[in-house]
Amino acid sequence: MPHNHRPSGPRYGNRPTMKDVAARAGVGLKTVSRVVNGEPGVTPETEKRVQEAIEALGFRRNDSARVLRKGRTATVGLVLEDLADPFYGPLNRAVEEVARAHGALLINGSSAQDPDRERELALALCARRVDGLIVIPAGNDHRYLEPEMRAGVATVFVDRPAGGIDADVVLSDNYGGARGGVAHLVAGGHRRVGFIGDHPRIHTATERLRGYRAAMAEAGLAVAESWVSLGSTEPGRVAAAARSMLAGREPVTAVFAGNNRVTVTVVRVLASLQRPVALVGFDDFELADLLRPGVTVVAQDPAALGRVATDRLFQRLSGTNLPPTRIELPTRLVPRGSGELPPAD
Amino acid sequence: MPHNHRPSGPRYGNRPTMKDVAARAGVGLKTVSRVVNGEPGVTPETEKRVQEAIEALGFRRNDSARVLRKGRTATVGLVLEDLADPFYGPLNRAVEEVARAHGALLINGSSAQDPDRERELALALCARRVDGLIVIPAGNDHRYLEPEMRAGVATVFVDRPAGGIDADVVLSDNYGGARGGVAHLVAGGHRRVGFIGDHPRIHTATERLRGYRAAMAEAGLAVAESWVSLGSTEPGRVAAAARSMLAGREPVTAVFAGNNRVTVTVVRVLASLQRPVALVGFDDFELADLLRPGVTVVAQDPAALGRVATDRLFQRLSGTNLPPTRIELPTRLVPRGSGELPPAD
Repeated sequence: MPHNHRPSGPRYGNRPTMKDVAARAGVGLKTVSRVVNGEPGVTPETEKRVQEAIEALGFRRNDSARVLRKGRTATVGLVLEDLADPFYGPLNRAVEEVARAHGALLINGSSAQDPDRERELALALCARRVDGLIVIPAGNDHRYLEPEMRAGVATVFVDRPAGGIDADVVLSDNYGGARGGVAHLVAGGHRRVGFIGDHPRIHTATERLRGYRAAMAEAGLAVAESWVSLGSTEPGRVAAAARSMLAGREPVTAVFAGNNRVTVTVVRVLASLQRPVALVGFDDFELADLLRPGVTVVAQDPAALGRVATDRLFQRLSGTNLPPTRIELPTRLVPRGSGELPPAD
Repeated sequence: MPHNHRPSGPRYGNRPTMKDVAARAGVGLKTVSRVVNGEPGVTPETEKRVQEAIEALGFRRNDSARVLRKGRTATVGLVLEDLADPFYGPLNRAVEEVARAHGALLINGSSAQDPDRERELALALCARRVDGLIVIPAGNDHRYLEPEMRAGVATVFVDRPAGGIDADVVLSDNYGGARGGVAHLVAGGHRRVGFIGDHPRIHTATERLRGYRAAMAEAGLAVAESWVSLGSTEPGRVAAAARSMLAGREPVTAVFAGNNRVTVTVVRVLASLQRPVALVGFDDFELADLLRPGVTVVAQDPAALGRVATDRLFQRLSGTNLPPTRIELPTRLVPRGSGELPPAD
């Protein structure tokens, strides 16, 4: 059995080089370079000899050197926002599929919802010379990416727009989706509807809140500020917010949950209550239809977000001079029972 | 507003260089290099001038060049198997947290369950000179990684062992967990228990099947081959397999589902039946406790798998000469109702 690692010596120092391949094959360095880079001017017999030497020595081209010589790396970077949010699984997968169809490798990292980490990660990917970058922003200031974009790194934002710079963005109709979801509750007879959302610094959270306020205003309903709660999607915070607006003198009879992380916690809180409370959540999620009642949602299409954003990225990489564009995808109301419960009082 | 991209000219060709910084700061190239690389021998005033020039020009160090000069990149690669499987979210996040605690950047990619893509991605990450590699294998032959490991790329496999090479692996007690889960069903009075699992080429699938057979044999129960179905976790395939073993002359009264992708589909099939059928699933999943009945599972700890694997990787990177080791983490039976249903007949 081979040893897993050599414990000492310079890392990478014992990799076979093109020189080693040339020596073993009995050819010149330029010939090896031609074979490795698929250039013409090598006879089939010589190519075979070089390939055998490459195989025998375990030689691998050093792409770091290639990047310095050529412009492109055929690599696309994706800055994710939260690895634990299942919403991003299909988005990530769609980006990967499109990148692969273009012959590019996708490398990801996550900001874990921290603007400083987003910046660090995006710049680290640029330093590794990705051709393009897809960013799900955690922060609101993306001027740090200006030098990279000027230098030619194609950049597309997805889910939320960039801050402080003019750049492509692909997102869902957050305002319209939330407005439609809340209007659905109001049409069912609810007058006191609560809203629990993500941090107010997050664009999607404030857009969805704007949709909630619009639907309430259009129905001529006042909003008590105790019915609105923005903040972390951490279960403890969300559960406390839900319990608070379900208690008191003017308890809500329905809740609009601002994203899937909020919805699953609200489902838990409502399951522990004696009275039925209506619920509509932004984002669809697995098993929503199997809960009792099924959870009514405003569904986004995360795979479409990823696909459209990556298509846009490769349009940019193909050299077309495109103005920065905002592409908004529609949402879809999926009634399943929880959003159709009548007011309890 | 700045333009997003320049449409023509060599990509990266217009990035400012160290030479540009030196010219602007009015210092030599070596001085700029010292500042950029944090080396001594520069007065505070000169350093300030150089930093100002770096800031003004938007200069960024080219890490591709650095990699060629130095050995380490402070980058760790993670080859995922399926981006759409929520099991990997906490695993991925744990790897990222540990890597970050060591000052390393994590870059991911997914094999999408395809052994060829796994190989391509792992080698592409090596070509970009990651210091270490964590692999969730899709394939069964990892001899292609031998030259990389010999050249010093620390490599740890997680969830499933490497094939054809001797390497570290961190995994769950798949055999013992499945055996315990099936024994739990048998203890509840079931004599005809079905098993639906992933592809037989996947190590976890065959280990869990082995656990199922052991538990049945220990109870003196014969296994009809119509009760066992391995294959894709695609919902259509799993639903057909479930329906088939729930029909016929000797229908199963309980199902053991080989992973969370299988479990959620079996839950759907059972929800459409008139009679209760017991279910235990391998892997916990979100909302399992809120379904009616709650879903009894054999829970792994995906975050612990990621954490232990990454700790091991950094032990290797610290230069210790460690023999390849297999680390097995225990599983935990979580009874919630579905696994405690008695046989229907």
